[in-house]
Amino acid sequence: MPSMGLIVQKFGGTSVGDAQKIHRAARRAIRAKLHGQRVVMVVSAMGRTTDKLVALAREVSSTPPKRELDVLLTTGEQVSIALMAMAIHEGGHEAISLTAAQLGLMTDSVHTRARIQRIERQRLERELEKGRIVIVAGFQGIDQAGEITTLGRGASDTTAAALAAVLRADACEIYTDVDGVYTADPRLVPNARKIDRISYDEMLEMAAAGAGVMHARAIEFGMRFSVPIHVRSSLTDVHGTMIMTETQGMEAIAIRSVTLREDLAAIFIIGMSNDPGLVSTLFSEIAKHNIVVDDIIRNIYDNGQRANIGFVIPAESSAVAREVTDRLAKEHGFQSVEHHSRVSKVSAIGVGMRSHSGVAAKMFQALSDAGIEIHTISTSEIVIGCVVSSGDGPRALTAVHDAFELSNPNGAGDAT
Amino acid sequence: MPSMGLIVQKFGGTSVGDAQKIHRAARRAIRAKLHGQRVVMVVSAMGRTTDKLVALAREVSSTPPKRELDVLLTTGEQVSIALMAMAIHEGGHEAISLTAAQLGLMTDSVHTRARIQRIERQRLERELEKGRIVIVAGFQGIDQAGEITTLGRGASDTTAAALAAVLRADACEIYTDVDGVYTADPRLVPNARKIDRISYDEMLEMAAAGAGVMHARAIEFGMRFSVPIHVRSSLTDVHGTMIMTETQGMEAIAIRSVTLREDLAAIFIIGMSNDPGLVSTLFSEIAKHNIVVDDIIRNIYDNGQRANIGFVIPAESSAVAREVTDRLAKEHGFQSVEHHSRVSKVSAIGVGMRSHSGVAAKMFQALSDAGIEIHTISTSEIVIGCVVSSGDGPRALTAVHDAFELSNPNGAGDAT
Repeated sequence: MPSMGLIVQKFGGTSVGDAQKIHRAARRAIRAKLHGQRVVMVVSAMGRTTDKLVALAREVSSTPPKRELDVLLTTGEQVSIALMAMAIHEGGHEAISLTAAQLGLMTDSVHTRARIQRIERQRLERELEKGRIVIVAGFQGIDQAGEITTLGRGASDTTAAALAAVLRADACEIYTDVDGVYTADPRLVPNARKIDRISYDEMLEMAAAGAGVMHARAIEFGMRFSVPIHVRSSLTDVHGTMIMTETQGMEAIAIRSVTLREDLAAIFIIGMSNDPGLVSTLFSEIAKHNIVVDDIIRNIYDNGQRANIGFVIPAESSAVAREVTDRLAKEHGFQSVEHHSRVSKVSAIGVGMRSHSGVAAKMFQALSDAGIEIHTISTSEIVIGCVVSSGDGPRALTAVHDAFELSNPNGAGDAT
Repeated sequence: MPSMGLIVQKFGGTSVGDAQKIHRAARRAIRAKLHGQRVVMVVSAMGRTTDKLVALAREVSSTPPKRELDVLLTTGEQVSIALMAMAIHEGGHEAISLTAAQLGLMTDSVHTRARIQRIERQRLERELEKGRIVIVAGFQGIDQAGEITTLGRGASDTTAAALAAVLRADACEIYTDVDGVYTADPRLVPNARKIDRISYDEMLEMAAAGAGVMHARAIEFGMRFSVPIHVRSSLTDVHGTMIMTETQGMEAIAIRSVTLREDLAAIFIIGMSNDPGLVSTLFSEIAKHNIVVDDIIRNIYDNGQRANIGFVIPAESSAVAREVTDRLAKEHGFQSVEHHSRVSKVSAIGVGMRSHSGVAAKMFQALSDAGIEIHTISTSEIVIGCVVSSGDGPRALTAVHDAFELSNPNGAGDAT
């Protein structure tokens, strides 16, 4: 019956943490079924299972082969799909669990961070036609040779969004332990407000800026195939946050949310000779240590003879980066290198930025009024990011959140 | 290199119970490899994993679908193979883990007790040719449709023996927490002695008589394809017990071992009319309740007019069997029905029985000397079984073990 709606429901680890929670998730799927929907569920491993399996691997091996790590970790989701199918049967409905191999969720062969290449529809559609709720193991895939792969931590979201795309689902629901996406982390900003609707672009920038709500590739799938993603609580029936195609109404608000990313370090190199080859040497030396560099700023002075350069890296890479830059400083005669082993980055995100002027100015003013020094500023089309001292992070977040009145549902985020 | 030896090593749950034990098993495989063998390992789930998974299923569902139970339970072995592969890599050698699906271990579609139909050799041989230790998940299979199956509890032994058969292995080693097969359960008979060599037939009868050492189908595979099975300790290098084709020397000993099966019940029907149709009614009524009946004895008297009939069933089926027989007693006018809700069965097993006379007489004498009443006697070619009262079981076991001098390595088990 192609006229029936189709919904993909994804349940994260905290939403399937024990038998009771599994039954709660099962009831939700059954309810959708009784409302005439065809239902595909995607489930993660129970609670902290994946962490425990990783710990077990580390006990056995200092450098576990990635192929075997994938064989190990995929068992967590396999346990969940079987239990979920049992719970739905117990509730009196038909269900079937499918591993990635059984479903035909094909990926490339890059173990521990494979990318989905193709999803077979035959088995899925055959089971749905039988009136069954289909339960798919998140996070896992299989390559052309039948090797077991995984899509990266948190990637059950991606499995769900990809399935929703392939099946042209009406919606992809992400059930989690929070009731939606907030204007800021509510643990840091108590008056943060739940966002009703947010664009894919804004959500991608939030993921990049450190908001751990959703896996970035899941958002990309939703965007590419125009599948609305509904992030909501597994505990209540309250509407959560709809991640969707940008609408004109969205631009009425300049800023949709502010995020704080901590555990960063910043390095500023003062007075290096302005030589493009030297810049390339600097970043290729750093890349050799698999350090992800962000927010590079550079300015030239002394009639184009000399340059200052600054960039941000994960705090855990700070010691290694210090060694590299100090060595290059000696070899190439930099005037000085400043290391900030702990900095934070506050980002304001909103598609409204495109049409509202004065957003950056208002953000800088808010930080200045709060007496917070800005080390670095980076901007893109819908994001403004300010690097501040680590201790200032939470206060900076609140200052920007307040300045744009994000806790106020009316007229919120206006730059004027 | 077809001239190299090939060995299958199977490690049970207690032999892979933690990281240290996994490393110990890995070292054993590596040692065989360094001695020029090609090595295939079969591993069970760690420790009590399978029990824990079953308990989890029961928490979620009173009657979990068997298909989903198989999806659930096979994760235990998948965890073990991945960790074992990591341990071997950590030891500096090449290894690869294979699930049943990856290997191509094909079974029928009877979930929770599937039977092996075919094992693909290509992948196994390709990996062995690369010089890798191949680690196969025990207990699991896959059917023609790609559904996950299991072979029944304890069936990792069967996986190992089947692989040894298909690969024409030189030996199949079963590593466990005991150092071999004993003349009797050493927990009940302290002077029980480890058996050096035992025939497949004797081992099969031991499994049937309640000795939990090995899965019966594993022994059948060994027998059918003449693969010697070496049952030995995972903790020491001591020779264990070799299960092998019967040799002439084996018959020098009348009795190889004695076993005790407890948790049985016996029912004796006195004075039923000697009507074959009635016997058939009796056992088909009992079969309706899935009760396994053993040791049926029957005698006819009163000029063929009347019969007594006795049989043994699992104690857990005692109450149901009582209802059935009491009802039939009323309907068909049996003189009386005796119920023994707890009996034990002592069995003496040995291929030497075929050529030694007086074995049964010696066994009965031993029980009589110990003042133990025999309820029922059943005999087959290489087994004599006596049903005794439950309280007499351990004493009966010791009496028979002593009578045949099984603790004495020389001249043991002689009937004379």
